[in-house]
Amino acid sequence: MTRLDAPGANFLAEIHEQPEALTRMLEHRAEFREIGRACAAREPVALRLVGHGSSDAAAVYGVYAFGLLPGWTALRDSISLTVYYGARLDFSRSVVVALSQSGSTPDVVTYVERARERGALTVALTNDPRSELAAAAEATLPLAAGDERSVAATKTFFNELGALVLLAGAAAGREDEVADGLRRAAELAADSIPGLEQAVGPVATAFAYVGRMYVIGRGVEFATAREIALKLTETCRVAAEPLTSTGLSHGPIAALDSMFPVWTIGSRDESLAALVEAAARVREAGATLVASGSAAAEVEGAAWHLPVPEAPMPLLSPLLSVLPGQLFAAALAQAKGLDPDRPERLTKVTRAR
Amino acid sequence: MTRLDAPGANFLAEIHEQPEALTRMLEHRAEFREIGRACAAREPVALRLVGHGSSDAAAVYGVYAFGLLPGWTALRDSISLTVYYGARLDFSRSVVVALSQSGSTPDVVTYVERARERGALTVALTNDPRSELAAAAEATLPLAAGDERSVAATKTFFNELGALVLLAGAAAGREDEVADGLRRAAELAADSIPGLEQAVGPVATAFAYVGRMYVIGRGVEFATAREIALKLTETCRVAAEPLTSTGLSHGPIAALDSMFPVWTIGSRDESLAALVEAAARVREAGATLVASGSAAAEVEGAAWHLPVPEAPMPLLSPLLSVLPGQLFAAALAQAKGLDPDRPERLTKVTRAR
Repeated sequence: MTRLDAPGANFLAEIHEQPEALTRMLEHRAEFREIGRACAAREPVALRLVGHGSSDAAAVYGVYAFGLLPGWTALRDSISLTVYYGARLDFSRSVVVALSQSGSTPDVVTYVERARERGALTVALTNDPRSELAAAAEATLPLAAGDERSVAATKTFFNELGALVLLAGAAAGREDEVADGLRRAAELAADSIPGLEQAVGPVATAFAYVGRMYVIGRGVEFATAREIALKLTETCRVAAEPLTSTGLSHGPIAALDSMFPVWTIGSRDESLAALVEAAARVREAGATLVASGSAAAEVEGAAWHLPVPEAPMPLLSPLLSVLPGQLFAAALAQAKGLDPDRPERLTKVTRAR
Repeated sequence: MTRLDAPGANFLAEIHEQPEALTRMLEHRAEFREIGRACAAREPVALRLVGHGSSDAAAVYGVYAFGLLPGWTALRDSISLTVYYGARLDFSRSVVVALSQSGSTPDVVTYVERARERGALTVALTNDPRSELAAAAEATLPLAAGDERSVAATKTFFNELGALVLLAGAAAGREDEVADGLRRAAELAADSIPGLEQAVGPVATAFAYVGRMYVIGRGVEFATAREIALKLTETCRVAAEPLTSTGLSHGPIAALDSMFPVWTIGSRDESLAALVEAAARVREAGATLVASGSAAAEVEGAAWHLPVPEAPMPLLSPLLSVLPGQLFAAALAQAKGLDPDRPERLTKVTRAR
């Protein structure tokens, strides 16, 4: 048994706790149903998502969840426009979903206050129902991730994905189907974690001196790419940049060489062909490829394969494809002698503007 | 006189040509006025921007230009949702602005075709009025950047900024004020380039072995940060990641050390205090700071200052603050023996999906 004060012990334990945390969130289904129905009643012309860090990565996923389930135009809104520049946007037919683990992120709280004053229906998704953010928003939905002791978050992101898709499902009148899918995804995740934890070990050993990486995904998996890149940056001090497979070809591919590995996330959906083509270009550039995701086997020439099971619905793929990235970050941090529970210069609650 | 087949000669020449290119675009004012009025007549609930690479960086600027001038909700739309996933979004009260130098980017063309079928008013901003994109869109506005011989683009981005703000100004009935500001910004840019070209030389010498950087901006300058990071990545093979000053504190700051410099862009507007605070955190982390922008002097402890003049309107700041970054990329590429005119694995027209 690993001691909980060993470096990274909380981070790793919390990766393991994610399926349980998601199942706990599903106990709040009735609340998601009620708020989802209220969002739909507003007939929004825009669903505005705001958050920073992992919450902003989850917001990328929200664009797909609300775009594909109720068919709404969703955007990661500019916080600066409203909080700093005082732009006079029309919020009257908007729904705002604000994401913050702590519920204390200053500019997210200010954004929600202003959006609410101007007529938006404001929903807070937070782990702390007594937070400032919860007080500022008209409605609060619990992340129910439980106590998160590691500064580098995992359960928060996992449950934010679940919460966003459950809310989007409720808005579309499909929360039963989504909740069933989430329950099954939690089971698949729990089944996969032990094997993936073994599989990432040799990759971490091989990558111990890597200083920079790209993490590539397309469509819903771009959210996963952003979160994995962020974990690698904050826990392993790797300059890891998330890119779409298309964005890679519009410039960044020029920087690749054999010391600059690329992590690909390929799931079986309509965007897979674009990802597979991008991976081929990476291989031609001589960069080492790691192929993850349910369609990892489709990526030819990868030095490492970290496949995950197919999700019950394609939209739920990120709940599985994020796991190898999180576990790899834990293993790489250990190989580098770093502590993901307490990365330098970070605190659990970020109050920076 | 530098020979035009010397490495980077076109890239550098085109940086110098930017003020002239912008002035040439302004000759098309009447077209921008007409299309801007047509966009306003639509009373759009969403202004959707699409593009890749530098065009996507310009789209970030578009969110601010349309948010601050006509007060519209603008977003960098998900291309995947419409092109790959077939989401059924309501485009009937949308205006689409599609950005592509060549007008040949496949998924941007497909996006515009579908958006137009579903009732969006579609506007192409392209350097080639005979392109596929121009044919797909209802209206086309010329970038008028002229022939761009360097694969790494500069004039395209510069004129995309100008075109977006001129269109936003026209939509708000303020195109005279914006056009006057742009004309003055072009003059200030022309005056600044020679001095900046001298000033970046020592920074490039000092940074010749740098492998990774962050480029930090907030608000409108986040667009500039994205473009400068892209130039450094594609022309200098630096892993340069753009971050907002707030995003930096939500994870990436943990990766900094004395070998990981940070380029800050600070302009005199309401977001400056957040940028200055972020720079202080960077300095505490022991990373080398480069301070650029009209408010470069506000950033304490920077090893290098690359100030630019204040823009005639705060919204036009990126037209000046992008210049030191472009010139630094040219100098750093030269110091590294790389050729920005022909980066490895890139072509002028990117057809990758």
